[in-house]
Amino acid sequence: MRISELASATGVRVPTIKYYLREGLLPEAERTAATQAVYDERHAQRLRVVRALIGSGVSVAETRKVVAALDEPPADPHELLGAAHAAVTPVVTGERDLTAAQELVAQLGWRPGLCDETVLHAVAAALDALTAVGFTVPEHVMPVYLSSMRDIARAEIAGVPTDSVESAVRYVVLGSVMVEPLLLALRRVAEQVASAERFGEARG
Amino acid sequence: MRISELASATGVRVPTIKYYLREGLLPEAERTAATQAVYDERHAQRLRVVRALIGSGVSVAETRKVVAALDEPPADPHELLGAAHAAVTPVVTGERDLTAAQELVAQLGWRPGLCDETVLHAVAAALDALTAVGFTVPEHVMPVYLSSMRDIARAEIAGVPTDSVESAVRYVVLGSVMVEPLLLALRRVAEQVASAERFGEARG
Repeated sequence: MRISELASATGVRVPTIKYYLREGLLPEAERTAATQAVYDERHAQRLRVVRALIGSGVSVAETRKVVAALDEPPADPHELLGAAHAAVTPVVTGERDLTAAQELVAQLGWRPGLCDETVLHAVAAALDALTAVGFTVPEHVMPVYLSSMRDIARAEIAGVPTDSVESAVRYVVLGSVMVEPLLLALRRVAEQVASAERFGEARG
Repeated sequence: MRISELASATGVRVPTIKYYLREGLLPEAERTAATQAVYDERHAQRLRVVRALIGSGVSVAETRKVVAALDEPPADPHELLGAAHAAVTPVVTGERDLTAAQELVAQLGWRPGLCDETVLHAVAAALDALTAVGFTVPEHVMPVYLSSMRDIARAEIAGVPTDSVESAVRYVVLGSVMVEPLLLALRRVAEQVASAERFGEARG
């Protein structure tokens, strides 16, 4: 199909498609003649993924890493998941003390060498940001964060499809990134329900 | 203290402080003379909050809403939490079908009128984004998301301090926003641990 047909098929405007092409987020079209570029269902599917990622607030640079992980998955399943995570975890720069983060994630069963260091830096950066605003997670709350995230991760990883490398990568990459807004929104709703339970019922 | 002293006290550079002042994220200094502006500990504390929010990826517009909620908290605790949530929940625009979101959050104990509609739209938008990329949360995983978020919310709301309105607002606003990166990073670590458990142990 032509670029105008790709636009109709996906609901993404032609200038946006051209922007994604320039940014390397979509594979180039097949050139059937000097002025004729042909797109197929593969482009349409990728375009939906890119639009959804960017629409969810994922940056162009991170989206590029996600599509790279979808395009060239490593062979070993565990390594594959590590690569997918690394691709979609923003790299936190700067020197920081990882001690508190290591102690925290040890309670999740983490140990040195088990996984990609990027996520450990992300935990440390999140703890540092809390310290910076003088916010302390109450003592009874942190264990609930840990046990909840362990429950979630076990259920998610149990669901990784093993029929093909492509479907496993797709599941991990999209499941990691695209589920985040859902989890955060559900937390907000649950907080409002818990707040109504503790502080009084609905008005109006 | 002068602006240069405020910069030293907080580690935020003077041009950045001036930018925050222009954006209305910091209260104006007390003017002791036409050319003399005096800042106090209140400015330093607010500056640390603003820098941490913006450093966590919260937009200037959302940060402005957060500091407004810190400055003018409503009196009723439940309403206060609703206002705080509304302030820090990005407003999702556009027409959308809320049916699936309502059915989902009903399992959290939500019912119409209980809380701010903003969060319901956020749930619906997150579900729509998953549909757009063709990702389905496995049937056995969604109940784990719901029960985990309920456990987290109950523990968090049980920890809301009631000694003063200010401390309650601070807890809710900062706890909602600043804890998000921590939860997401812990989920990534837990996923890698679960992946190592399922697909093989650490290499190297």
